[in-house]
Amino acid sequence: MVIELKKNVSKEQAELLSKTYNAILFKEQEGFVLVTSSKQKEITAELEQAAKKVTVTSSDIQLAGKEYVSTKRTIDFGNFSIGGNTKNTLVITGPCSVENETQINQSAELCVSLGVKVLRAGAYKPRTSPYSFQGLGLDGLKLLADVRAKYGLKIITEVKDFSHVNEVIEYSDIIQVGAKAMYDQGILRACSQTQKPILIKRGFGSTLQEFVQAAEFVLSGGNPNVILCERGIRTFETKTRFTLDLCGISWLKEYTNLPVVIDPSHAMGFAYGVSDLCRAAVAMGVDGVLIETHPTPKVAQSDAEQQLNFEQFTSLYHSLKPIAQAVRYNIV
Amino acid sequence: MVIELKKNVSKEQAELLSKTYNAILFKEQEGFVLVTSSKQKEITAELEQAAKKVTVTSSDIQLAGKEYVSTKRTIDFGNFSIGGNTKNTLVITGPCSVENETQINQSAELCVSLGVKVLRAGAYKPRTSPYSFQGLGLDGLKLLADVRAKYGLKIITEVKDFSHVNEVIEYSDIIQVGAKAMYDQGILRACSQTQKPILIKRGFGSTLQEFVQAAEFVLSGGNPNVILCERGIRTFETKTRFTLDLCGISWLKEYTNLPVVIDPSHAMGFAYGVSDLCRAAVAMGVDGVLIETHPTPKVAQSDAEQQLNFEQFTSLYHSLKPIAQAVRYNIV
Amino acid sequence: MVIELKKNVSKEQAELLSKTYNAILFKEQEGFVLVTSSKQKEITAELEQAAKKVTVTSSDIQLAGKEYVSTKRTIDFGNFSIGGNTKNTLVITGPCSVENETQINQSAELCVSLGVKVLRAGAYKPRTSPYSFQGLGLDGLKLLADVRAKYGLKIITEVKDFSHVNEVIEYSDIIQVGAKAMYDQGILRACSQTQKPILIKRGFGSTLQEFVQAAEFVLSGGNPNVILCERGIRTFETKTRFTLDLCGISWLKEYTNLPVVIDPSHAMGFAYGVSDLCRAAVAMGVDGVLIETHPTPKVAQSDAEQQLNFEQFTSLYHSLKPIAQAVRYNIV
Amino acid sequence: MVIELKKNVSKEQAELLSKTYNAILFKEQEGFVLVTSSKQKEITAELEQAAKKVTVTSSDIQLAGKEYVSTKRTIDFGNFSIGGNTKNTLVITGPCSVENETQINQSAELCVSLGVKVLRAGAYKPRTSPYSFQGLGLDGLKLLADVRAKYGLKIITEVKDFSHVNEVIEYSDIIQVGAKAMYDQGILRACSQTQKPILIKRGFGSTLQEFVQAAEFVLSGGNPNVILCERGIRTFETKTRFTLDLCGISWLKEYTNLPVVIDPSHAMGFAYGVSDLCRAAVAMGVDGVLIETHPTPKVAQSDAEQQLNFEQFTSLYHSLKPIAQAVRYNIV
Repeated sequence: MVIELKKNVSKEQAELLSKTYNAILFKEQEGFVLVTSSKQKEITAELEQAAKKVTVTSSDIQLAGKEYVSTKRTIDFGNFSIGGNTKNTLVITGPCSVENETQINQSAELCVSLGVKVLRAGAYKPRTSPYSFQGLGLDGLKLLADVRAKYGLKIITEVKDFSHVNEVIEYSDIIQVGAKAMYDQGILRACSQTQKPILIKRGFGSTLQEFVQAAEFVLSGGNPNVILCERGIRTFETKTRFTLDLCGISWLKEYTNLPVVIDPSHAMGFAYGVSDLCRAAVAMGVDGVLIETHPTPKVAQSDAEQQLNFEQFTSLYHSLKPIAQAVRYNIV
Repeated sequence: MVIELKKNVSKEQAELLSKTYNAILFKEQEGFVLVTSSKQKEITAELEQAAKKVTVTSSDIQLAGKEYVSTKRTIDFGNFSIGGNTKNTLVITGPCSVENETQINQSAELCVSLGVKVLRAGAYKPRTSPYSFQGLGLDGLKLLADVRAKYGLKIITEVKDFSHVNEVIEYSDIIQVGAKAMYDQGILRACSQTQKPILIKRGFGSTLQEFVQAAEFVLSGGNPNVILCERGIRTFETKTRFTLDLCGISWLKEYTNLPVVIDPSHAMGFAYGVSDLCRAAVAMGVDGVLIETHPTPKVAQSDAEQQLNFEQFTSLYHSLKPIAQAVRYNIV
Repeated sequence: MVIELKKNVSKEQAELLSKTYNAILFKEQEGFVLVTSSKQKEITAELEQAAKKVTVTSSDIQLAGKEYVSTKRTIDFGNFSIGGNTKNTLVITGPCSVENETQINQSAELCVSLGVKVLRAGAYKPRTSPYSFQGLGLDGLKLLADVRAKYGLKIITEVKDFSHVNEVIEYSDIIQVGAKAMYDQGILRACSQTQKPILIKRGFGSTLQEFVQAAEFVLSGGNPNVILCERGIRTFETKTRFTLDLCGISWLKEYTNLPVVIDPSHAMGFAYGVSDLCRAAVAMGVDGVLIETHPTPKVAQSDAEQQLNFEQFTSLYHSLKPIAQAVRYNIV
Repeated sequence: MVIELKKNVSKEQAELLSKTYNAILFKEQEGFVLVTSSKQKEITAELEQAAKKVTVTSSDIQLAGKEYVSTKRTIDFGNFSIGGNTKNTLVITGPCSVENETQINQSAELCVSLGVKVLRAGAYKPRTSPYSFQGLGLDGLKLLADVRAKYGLKIITEVKDFSHVNEVIEYSDIIQVGAKAMYDQGILRACSQTQKPILIKRGFGSTLQEFVQAAEFVLSGGNPNVILCERGIRTFETKTRFTLDLCGISWLKEYTNLPVVIDPSHAMGFAYGVSDLCRAAVAMGVDGVLIETHPTPKVAQSDAEQQLNFEQFTSLYHSLKPIAQAVRYNIV
């Protein structure tokens, strides 16, 4: 149950109600909000009196659900927005990992040349083996900060585990919670304490219900700026790295109020399929796509097989506009 | 190994070679073809002498593979074609089951009014419970034949098990091998004895490798007209009926020479997502889409939740053309 | 709803009721039985009058469910039984495929020497590739009949598709419906017309609900002798061939009245794990285990990697008795 | 490649080699060990000279693999051990969550009365919803410490995310890395800095390869005491909570040198199947089982459906000994 309290309810009163009713409390612009378990279906007189609006919810998808807010949330990036009524599809690109200054500058220049506004690159890499390249860490974050200053791009980079969450929140414009960290409450709670946009990647073994419930940790901590990112789930099929779940995108669009972004690169795992899948995503009217590119994919220190080279990406990028137009969206 | 024999090799010679080398033999327009296990990598002098062309293959995807024929096969339907260089995306629609004359006539009239050329409807339904509606059987096939005669549409209908395969081959223009029958060699071998197009649906628990190998049963029996249809695989996600595997479509396009059709209706299982998924499929440049429609979905005797009503389908249909154009395909 | 009719209800009356109420009709020793869809929850006065007992069921698991018969069914093999109160665990062994007379005789001799009563071997092989060994077909069935006559063993062999179902029913003592044929209504209906035991293997992509509903096709056709066989499901894990679903066995024991058999050989796909998994199955108190053995696994024409040699099987066999005793079962 | 350095190689030399060859360095009792990527297959003269033993490995399962150490590791708990040649199967039980003093004392008394040596209970609960009970946190750890002091039991409790890893390492005898945290390098690296046993639960979406590679993070940081715990993977089957992967256990026993423990409670998700599955696990000769119990399961604040009551557990416990004996193991 989501209970939006009246504007005149004081912080002390709100905290008392939160304790009494075992509810999570957070503050929005227009006042305090309490969220109880969705199992709670009836409200007491005391709560009723303090409430401006009460939403009974059918599952623990509460703040993220259409039952609570029936229109899509808008995420504002300063010079542009996605979600809401914008009909914008945001293109994000960049290498899997920031490897060195030259490589990341080349990637930034690709963005600038095409008009891409957001650069992605990982500094902390959640590799499954300790014997692989683990990313540049804080040095990587600093390189990304330099690129932002130099090229005027927004930066999105991934937090891998709680040990460096504060650094990523500090350095990045959009904080990416990686697929392997999707359940990490330490990270999610830290992300709820900022107002920067949080892009949560779906765990490859995670149900849609769990995926959206991960967003609830951020939303119920007071950060309304959450974007969901589908990047493929693990199935019995092994010819491709993962299986992109576009049926899941349809479900998210129908039942949640969060913008959705699609990452075809990790789903496919091979460069050859990325462009087709990206076009499919755009034709669905999604809020963004996230595509891995590298100046020289063959020598990439991670995900070498799935990154597009600059020529492939340029060709893909130009093909997206007419598809977006066909479904009345704009590429931004 | 695929061994195309010289035109002057006689039937007797070909049969002898087939026996000697434990190879499957079939006849194409341009002569006999032998196919051994793909484990065989070297050819004898005797075979070499009889051979026009020899293709060593890396797996038992042989006749269907790009290693053997590097361009997409063309499937000819008389008044139109798909595959090859046609850049055509075929729209197929109709109800899950043929239920009665009125319903199937209404469905046919929808097709005619929009210019849709192929009508789908099931007569034999592979239900998982014996206590559900099982389809009209032969009476259903006869209703479909009447509709073809009356409206000039092509008919596609499903064979469920071997017991009625000959009736379906006789009555239908395109024979659909259902997802639950994909491994059925009795059916596949019967389908190899006709020249009518065979649309094989991927089993929801079947790998891409097995899927294409099912096509090999038909191709190696002498019917070159095989279409592959992705209709969703079974995964841990249960919010949607199945998970449409568009990564798999990218793989099929990269490694096989067969046209591919997508069925978003069975994948999604709910009408609300079908249109978005269908647009995604068209944006990938597929050879066809197969969408379930019903005059009154709520009263449908099977798959009630996933069938579009005529208004929804009409709106979807009109949205496909600009997307197809954007990827330089034509809706037929 | 399962409606057991009174003994004095005539065939004509029963057939009329079956038509009127759209119910499946079959005959048991004690009279006629009608089965409607499980969605039907209320009975008319007319049916009530003709009924001896009425069972409302919560899903289309009806005749196979504990709601209908709360005790496990007994399957009688003449000289021994399983299920019911027998606490017997039946050991079945033999090669994947019958390959030739010597091989199948050796396998039979292994059985005789240890006291194993049922020999398995495939004559029709449901291979996924047309270019692999496809089994000896009818010749294989004849070899199995010879072995039965010579060694006094029961034979279990698989029906692959409907085209040869009658031969298998004629030649085999237990008819195995293969995992790839589990949904095949042609086969299931044919199996309902005999009284021989039918062992249905779970499709590797099939839910437990569908698995048991396959049994309903046989049971509702009048053959009460159905055994369920778990042989591994397809998951994302590829180090082993399939994933043996022993949680599923617990569910089947809790909710159905059918005996269950476990096939660890196909689940594992490698000889090294079969013995451990077989012991696990016996410790669960199952009604049978089915283990692939071959005189010389390395040269087997199918499933070479997963078959135990005779020494391995003998050692395994001797280890089963103390485990069975520990859970108060008997190895038969 | 695992390179065990000669005893006389100094720390400085070892660190220099580690840098030069981009290898992880850690110290064992008998000297320093370097681990490079498994892609490295050849050794330089310089390294060869410093090396006592070199093991080329086929994948990044290196320290955990049989290629490196062919016998099972022994984990010593002071008054007893598992693994190695002990043939011990350790029974661990206790509630999902520590809820209050009474409940945890009752659980401890159950252990003492039966001779169970290790008590499990969660203080930090990795719930998927922020609106569920989240565990008692540090207060829970303190209650567990009291119980240890009072009853002389070993304690195992779970670390959920990196924010409290140090507390768990301090308070617990065995550190459980939860299934949702299996990829968390922050946690894994922290666990490598203690010598306490680390029990890593397999992520429900994680492959066996990734599972064992998680262990590599701990082993290569210098903690040799790692136990692997299978607790069910996520599949398409939803009648049970997860699917216990016993084929995977066979693979782990064949290819790794780590002791394995099975948790049937989380796999099954329902109390009715836990005992059968636990007996199956013991019959496989595993190194331990982990079973959830609660004084009054119905009122449990988490996992209410799957916890056994004390009577059920007592009955299960007594049934394990004869099965263990049958496979020549001892219940400890």
